Amino acid sequence: MKITANDIAIILDGKIVGNPDKAVSSPSGIEDASEDQITFLGNPKYEKYLVETNAGIIIVPSSITLNNQIKSTLILVEDVYLALAKLFQAFEGGQSMEPGISEKSNLEPGVLISNKAKIDAYVTVEEGAVIGDGVHIKSNVHIGKHVIIGEGSIIHSGARIMDRTEIGRNCIINPNAVIGSEGFGYAFDPKGYYVKIPHMGKVILQDNVEIGSNSTIDRGSMGNTLIMKGVKIDNLVHIAHNVTIGEHTAIAAQTGIAGSTKIGKYCRFGGQTGIVGHLNIADRTEVQAQSGIASSVKEEGSKLFGYPAINYMNYVKSFTVFKKLPELLKKIHRLEKLVDKLQSAKGE
Amino acid sequence: MKITANDIAIILDGKIVGNPDKAVSSPSGIEDASEDQITFLGNPKYEKYLVETNAGIIIVPSSITLNNQIKSTLILVEDVYLALAKLFQAFEGGQSMEPGISEKSNLEPGVLISNKAKIDAYVTVEEGAVIGDGVHIKSNVHIGKHVIIGEGSIIHSGARIMDRTEIGRNCIINPNAVIGSEGFGYAFDPKGYYVKIPHMGKVILQDNVEIGSNSTIDRGSMGNTLIMKGVKIDNLVHIAHNVTIGEHTAIAAQTGIAGSTKIGKYCRFGGQTGIVGHLNIADRTEVQAQSGIASSVKEEGSKLFGYPAINYMNYVKSFTVFKKLPELLKKIHRLEKLVDKLQSAKGE
Amino acid sequence: MKITANDIAIILDGKIVGNPDKAVSSPSGIEDASEDQITFLGNPKYEKYLVETNAGIIIVPSSITLNNQIKSTLILVEDVYLALAKLFQAFEGGQSMEPGISEKSNLEPGVLISNKAKIDAYVTVEEGAVIGDGVHIKSNVHIGKHVIIGEGSIIHSGARIMDRTEIGRNCIINPNAVIGSEGFGYAFDPKGYYVKIPHMGKVILQDNVEIGSNSTIDRGSMGNTLIMKGVKIDNLVHIAHNVTIGEHTAIAAQTGIAGSTKIGKYCRFGGQTGIVGHLNIADRTEVQAQSGIASSVKEEGSKLFGYPAINYMNYVKSFTVFKKLPELLKKIHRLEKLVDKLQSAKGE
Repeated sequence: MKITANDIAIILDGKIVGNPDKAVSSPSGIEDASEDQITFLGNPKYEKYLVETNAGIIIVPSSITLNNQIKSTLILVEDVYLALAKLFQAFEGGQSMEPGISEKSNLEPGVLISNKAKIDAYVTVEEGAVIGDGVHIKSNVHIGKHVIIGEGSIIHSGARIMDRTEIGRNCIINPNAVIGSEGFGYAFDPKGYYVKIPHMGKVILQDNVEIGSNSTIDRGSMGNTLIMKGVKIDNLVHIAHNVTIGEHTAIAAQTGIAGSTKIGKYCRFGGQTGIVGHLNIADRTEVQAQSGIASSVKEEGSKLFGYPAINYMNYVKSFTVFKKLPELLKKIHRLEKLVDKLQSAKGE
Repeated sequence: MKITANDIAIILDGKIVGNPDKAVSSPSGIEDASEDQITFLGNPKYEKYLVETNAGIIIVPSSITLNNQIKSTLILVEDVYLALAKLFQAFEGGQSMEPGISEKSNLEPGVLISNKAKIDAYVTVEEGAVIGDGVHIKSNVHIGKHVIIGEGSIIHSGARIMDRTEIGRNCIINPNAVIGSEGFGYAFDPKGYYVKIPHMGKVILQDNVEIGSNSTIDRGSMGNTLIMKGVKIDNLVHIAHNVTIGEHTAIAAQTGIAGSTKIGKYCRFGGQTGIVGHLNIADRTEVQAQSGIASSVKEEGSKLFGYPAINYMNYVKSFTVFKKLPELLKKIHRLEKLVDKLQSAKGE
Repeated sequence: MKITANDIAIILDGKIVGNPDKAVSSPSGIEDASEDQITFLGNPKYEKYLVETNAGIIIVPSSITLNNQIKSTLILVEDVYLALAKLFQAFEGGQSMEPGISEKSNLEPGVLISNKAKIDAYVTVEEGAVIGDGVHIKSNVHIGKHVIIGEGSIIHSGARIMDRTEIGRNCIINPNAVIGSEGFGYAFDPKGYYVKIPHMGKVILQDNVEIGSNSTIDRGSMGNTLIMKGVKIDNLVHIAHNVTIGEHTAIAAQTGIAGSTKIGKYCRFGGQTGIVGHLNIADRTEVQAQSGIASSVKEEGSKLFGYPAINYMNYVKSFTVFKKLPELLKKIHRLEKLVDKLQSAKGE
């Protein structure tokens, strides 16, 4: 399949600079693209490739400074990444899933599976599970007792959806993610050992949630763990028991959120962030990667950084001085000597 | 099944405030509980819910200040979490596992499986493995060669128990955990590349150990990796080759322990802690989340915090000043000017 | 099988101190070894065990100070770890894999599998995949569409090799690793939600790459994620979309590398390191565990430490003063008082 610059410009509501009949057959990165491929410029750091690339078409931000040496046809759009998302959806819309249940799967009695769903090989679905229209459960997945999976959701290979988990519509669970295992909760018996607190709650994922590969979301002890609609969670993230995450919050890889913390909506967490338990984090909070949040965040739109995390700019300013600390120490020693001299001079 | 406040008070050795005949049928979180449910108050932050909740029964700490407006029946206990653990064990004691081996499993010749064990679908058990009474191996698990699994242990879906691993009694291995893969050990060949050091050791888990979802425990190179009895490990934790972890130590999510380190007993590590290799960590050491331990800890009961980790209170005090560093810098500059002036005045 | 000190010395090009006819049958750690076992001294911290151990043979560095009380036979070598790697390869060279495809696997039409490869139970291989000579694919693995796996590579149990991933020769993919899942890329639609950017790129692993258990490597959005030859990646590491990692770089556990960053060759990253996106990291850069790299590294061989990371020695020096900050604050307050007094004295 070939698609012309003109067709793409119509899909993206973009402006063409170059040959509107230029046709491309596949996408590629700006460094590697060949003449019949389309690429994009998403980051100004890569601007030099605009001249070097062999790509037939490049999607670029409309703010770009044009350059006579660019041999590719350009399509100018306001938001390159949003344009890309739409373009790929147009490309992929043609694909359709063939429903059906693999003979090599293992369905327990008392499960309810839509005839528009697809179950691949070596999948186990335990009693009481309900699987909606258009759901695709890929190889080696475990679906526990009384799990509910809403329309159009995809459960990738090796994911473990534990008992009573509820997954909304159009969710994506990436490979080897574990949703709904028991939380890390123990009581310490005075006899000298930990006693496990069973976890009777469940995990609820609302619609349009995505969970990254190898991430883990624990179920609540008595209440539930709740991931609200539109939340996007990256790989290797840990969400502990009884956490609530508000709508459209995005959490980058390897972040960990301890038990019972409530995160607001439209927050953004950089990778490897840690958040202690029993906190409330206000809406639209933005946290720099690797930060450690140790107290609740009350002000909407706070920007945080550091270990432990404080206001972003304050951390940056303090760290600037931190780098000068050895020099500062010398200054203080010099001042001490001078002041001592001045004092003894005065005393003379 | 309904259970009365009176019955619960007997199980928990608690004191009833309210209606001893009040009956409940299931547990729930304090925010969501309905009249026929039981909940608990585990954290003083939630005290306002004591009045707001619709729960029929609430388990509360005996230290609580009673309040006339609470409509629920209360059961006062000394340790709420320990009471919960006992209560749930009483509830779950009724459940029993039906032993048996799924026709959809794959047992190699020369394995020894108790007829009181249960093996689910798509499990592989390789030669020489020994599986004890009451063990439940869930779907898609891999049991390697010569693995030993003690009585009553549960291996959750997708866990990988690699060759020669020994698991004690009543252990719980959560979904997709990997126990006994080769450690990260290479020799650098002067020709310019790494050569793998094979790992001939194994992983030994003693009794009552729990390993979290997607955690990884590597086997030793020549000696063993040893996790002693009662140790509790959360999700996404990494334990490197030849590490020893002492009895009843608890390790929160995403912590990493580098090779050959020896951790004492009754230690507690907050989430995302890192510990470098070849250290000795004294018994009962407590480490704040995200800390980075770079040297051995000799004193029992040490409390550590920071990156790199130092004494907890010292880090807190230093960080308090860190936040004022820009202000301190100004003070020093002001002092320098004043002292210079005083000096030149003196010189006049 | 028994092997003598003499035979081992020949394999390792080492020098014997003791009985050249001393024979051992298996390896063990220096603390646990018995008389018919071989062990090694890899770390000077363990030197006291040289006298205490019962090991028949110990491989030691040639730089060691000899001691009359050592009862074991010693083999002196220049590099103990390199010697071990060679020794184990000699031991393991005898083992050979029996090729064949398990009847309990699921091969889609249009796959190409060498008759010298081995496919274990509950493996799915999707259409268009190509699997080379000597490849061993262990239980419960998922091989996606058009995946290519080069000669001699081992894919351990539960690994997920997603569509179009290319794996070179003699690679090792450890259990439950996920290679080639979609990256964490979304465009924010002004209507108030994230739209997924599909990932059309792939992951390419060159020869002799090892990926740790439960690690995740995402495929590129338009271009590829590239892991060059000889790279060694530990457990629970996250490599985001479009990252490039140069030859023979080693990355310790739980490290995360954000999107589009390019890492040079022969770099070494300590555990739990974080690297932000769109950076360039020079060859032979060495990074201390838990560091957070927030800007590009231009100088080859840089040594970095800290959060955010700066020059290693500078961080150490600043942190030394950080620990004294409360004391410094007192000094400054004292100086302020003294200077104020001096000033008012002058004004009198």
